[in-house]
Amino acid sequence: MARTASLSGFPEWLPEERLVELHVLDTLRRVFELHGFGSIETRAVETVGQLLRKGDIDKEVYGLSRLQDDETDAGTDSSKAGKHDPHALALHFDLTVPFARYVVENAGYLAFPFRRYQIQKVWRGERPQEGRAREFTQADIDVVGDGELPFRYDVEIALVIAEALSALPIPDFRLRINNRKLAEGFYRGIGLDDTAGVLRSIDKLEKIGPSKVAELLKTELDATDEQAQAALKLAGIRTEDTSFVAQVRALGVSNELLEEGLSELEQVIEAAVQRAPGKVVADLSIARGLDYYTGTVVETVLVGHEQLGSICSGGRYDALASKGNRKFPGVGLSIGVTRLVSRILSQDLAKASRSVPTVVLVALTNDDSWGAAQDVAAQLRSRGIATEVAAKAEKFGKQIKFADRRGIPFVWFTDDDGNHQVKDIRSGDQADADPVRWTPPSEDLSVQVKTAAALPA
Amino acid sequence: MARTASLSGFPEWLPEERLVELHVLDTLRRVFELHGFGSIETRAVETVGQLLRKGDIDKEVYGLSRLQDDETDAGTDSSKAGKHDPHALALHFDLTVPFARYVVENAGYLAFPFRRYQIQKVWRGERPQEGRAREFTQADIDVVGDGELPFRYDVEIALVIAEALSALPIPDFRLRINNRKLAEGFYRGIGLDDTAGVLRSIDKLEKIGPSKVAELLKTELDATDEQAQAALKLAGIRTEDTSFVAQVRALGVSNELLEEGLSELEQVIEAAVQRAPGKVVADLSIARGLDYYTGTVVETVLVGHEQLGSICSGGRYDALASKGNRKFPGVGLSIGVTRLVSRILSQDLAKASRSVPTVVLVALTNDDSWGAAQDVAAQLRSRGIATEVAAKAEKFGKQIKFADRRGIPFVWFTDDDGNHQVKDIRSGDQADADPVRWTPPSEDLSVQVKTAAALPA
Repeated sequence: MARTASLSGFPEWLPEERLVELHVLDTLRRVFELHGFGSIETRAVETVGQLLRKGDIDKEVYGLSRLQDDETDAGTDSSKAGKHDPHALALHFDLTVPFARYVVENAGYLAFPFRRYQIQKVWRGERPQEGRAREFTQADIDVVGDGELPFRYDVEIALVIAEALSALPIPDFRLRINNRKLAEGFYRGIGLDDTAGVLRSIDKLEKIGPSKVAELLKTELDATDEQAQAALKLAGIRTEDTSFVAQVRALGVSNELLEEGLSELEQVIEAAVQRAPGKVVADLSIARGLDYYTGTVVETVLVGHEQLGSICSGGRYDALASKGNRKFPGVGLSIGVTRLVSRILSQDLAKASRSVPTVVLVALTNDDSWGAAQDVAAQLRSRGIATEVAAKAEKFGKQIKFADRRGIPFVWFTDDDGNHQVKDIRSGDQADADPVRWTPPSEDLSVQVKTAAALPA
Repeated sequence: MARTASLSGFPEWLPEERLVELHVLDTLRRVFELHGFGSIETRAVETVGQLLRKGDIDKEVYGLSRLQDDETDAGTDSSKAGKHDPHALALHFDLTVPFARYVVENAGYLAFPFRRYQIQKVWRGERPQEGRAREFTQADIDVVGDGELPFRYDVEIALVIAEALSALPIPDFRLRINNRKLAEGFYRGIGLDDTAGVLRSIDKLEKIGPSKVAELLKTELDATDEQAQAALKLAGIRTEDTSFVAQVRALGVSNELLEEGLSELEQVIEAAVQRAPGKVVADLSIARGLDYYTGTVVETVLVGHEQLGSICSGGRYDALASKGNRKFPGVGLSIGVTRLVSRILSQDLAKASRSVPTVVLVALTNDDSWGAAQDVAAQLRSRGIATEVAAKAEKFGKQIKFADRRGIPFVWFTDDDGNHQVKDIRSGDQADADPVRWTPPSEDLSVQVKTAAALPA
């Protein structure tokens, strides 16, 4: 475990590690589908123009070019174009921007509000470090409306994510939720109109601390000491219930947008207290870097692993996608699957019960019995039991050792008279068995992924 | 359906099309796992040196570079390096070369023979055309040995693939199987020693026809007319049983390698006739472009869609991966998932029974009933029934219309007294229902993907 990737920032898993990742992916898919989210995938490649539409993030983007550029079909060929040609191709760095493009392109074929989940790799050319890879998997859910999108979807998305994360083999977590309207309304109410600037400073709170943030607000945004202190007071509010509303009101700021934000955040927290108790906090320090958020914003920490950074982030965006006058407001959250799985594996938080899907190895009595062994295997497989057949009629001890080395729990023997026996090679128990009836214990039928707490010490 | 991709060669599916693709992927995974193949994924990115190790394929490769190259960590940064720097990064163009690297890197952690399946996207900068995309998904299975790999795995791999393809919603198919030893031994036996050259010419048989291949053999390889005719006669042999052996022998060529190849191909066809009747042919015209194959070679056609090209190809390679003196021979096949799915969709060969996972929409009687509706939804979901809750308490007719537009078959109503009813909006049938007991008909529980033949006209 925790081997070093042969290419820094591009993690690869061993088969037993991949089973943990697959379990995470399957679990997320199951929960998302149970809530009516359908799957889509977008191409890995976007035009540079599309990717950079939303601001200064091009440092992170991997551009594409054909290794040999003596092709004649230069039309869509980025290698002919300058690096910053908006038609040049590049790898997507998240799933939100491609999804917005997909919605606009396919609006005529989609039923709105459109609910989708999307689980794909994304690439960022950042310096690799713990919790930050250059190639990683994200699992996103979004609901997008045509023209308008009821606020209730903000509440729903938070609840779906809380349910999905609760189903994973990970430590306890907290969704830290804030609302841009609340923050921006408050800043306006105290006379700070460069609300994006204030948010950028507040976003640094955990990194540089309150006194340096106050300095930033004063030097960069010309805030008075009083304004800076008020902004910091707001960011200091953190409640597990709706009492944040009273705490904000006690700061004595009055603004219409602030009231709207307070009411929205109150609705989210109220529902979460009831339906996902202990999983959600109102945290008024949450700012989120990206400027397209317009309401609810969310970050998520693993309790005891806070330094890992947010494992699930997102929020409400009212104008990410538009087509002429038609707007597609949305709300969505994105789980950092690779960040989660890396942490699970590096700290042995969960393990697969074995390293192969195989339940049974059918041993060969002699070299001519391969056909009969295949018949046994076919019967077991037809009932959903993953089965391999030995390739060589080695001594039984060797065939059992082979199963043991591969992590296969059962070995099947058929003697020359056609009598069948199956051996649990963990216990050594061996018993008569019928290929059309025998089933393994249910915990052996498929690979189980269990948290460390649930594993025998 | 069959919309044009907004970026040529990079297909994207609508949600109901993606359900067909998901069905194909889930089916392949299920069959592979039933046969004991475990999942791995490799990074999308390899070094150019690794990718080009196996010959002249660099025309197809997409190189990567950081859009902004003012970074200081030039160590692994391809943008600093020349395009043909072997340390530069590029997207993988298949899954075999990355898998070989993975095996060598992780040999100490794997149990051999190592069986894996790998389902991932690959990229080739080729000119897009029907059946050939620039971004597409492959599904590979391989078995790799440490030092040696019994020939029986060649037989097994062919049978697993025949079973996997049979489980897909596609037309009938044929695995066309040949053996490199057979062909090379035959060519040597008739005095043609540049066997790779002969194979390259024979590979063009379907494209340019036998007389032009004969010309090629004579002009490029100095073959006599007799040699050219013998090579073409061999390539003309095609049998659904093991009678090809007698037909080859009748050509009167004697060579040790030829005999070995005949015996190997006979074993594959013999097993296939019995276990996958009608699915496999011995086709001695199959050459395969890649030079790393050393025995069994396979291509697969969809019957009635032959012009689509091979939908599943591969074979035995004895020296693709090595680590010092240690060799890792393997045998594997690769299914062109995107090619198959594109054809299924463009010709309506199969369809999803609905376009969303959702079975039930819980309607809102009034705006305050959202919480109670969520309780009903949670009860249904806890029993595996995918459920959405309406976001607004519109008139029931409007909520039913919403479900209809999204393709949701059932709408759930709860009156103010807490009485529940569920309506099948296709038939209009409405009946009392209990959220802790009601289940939909099994064919409605999850999305079904059925072939056109199985669909009502």
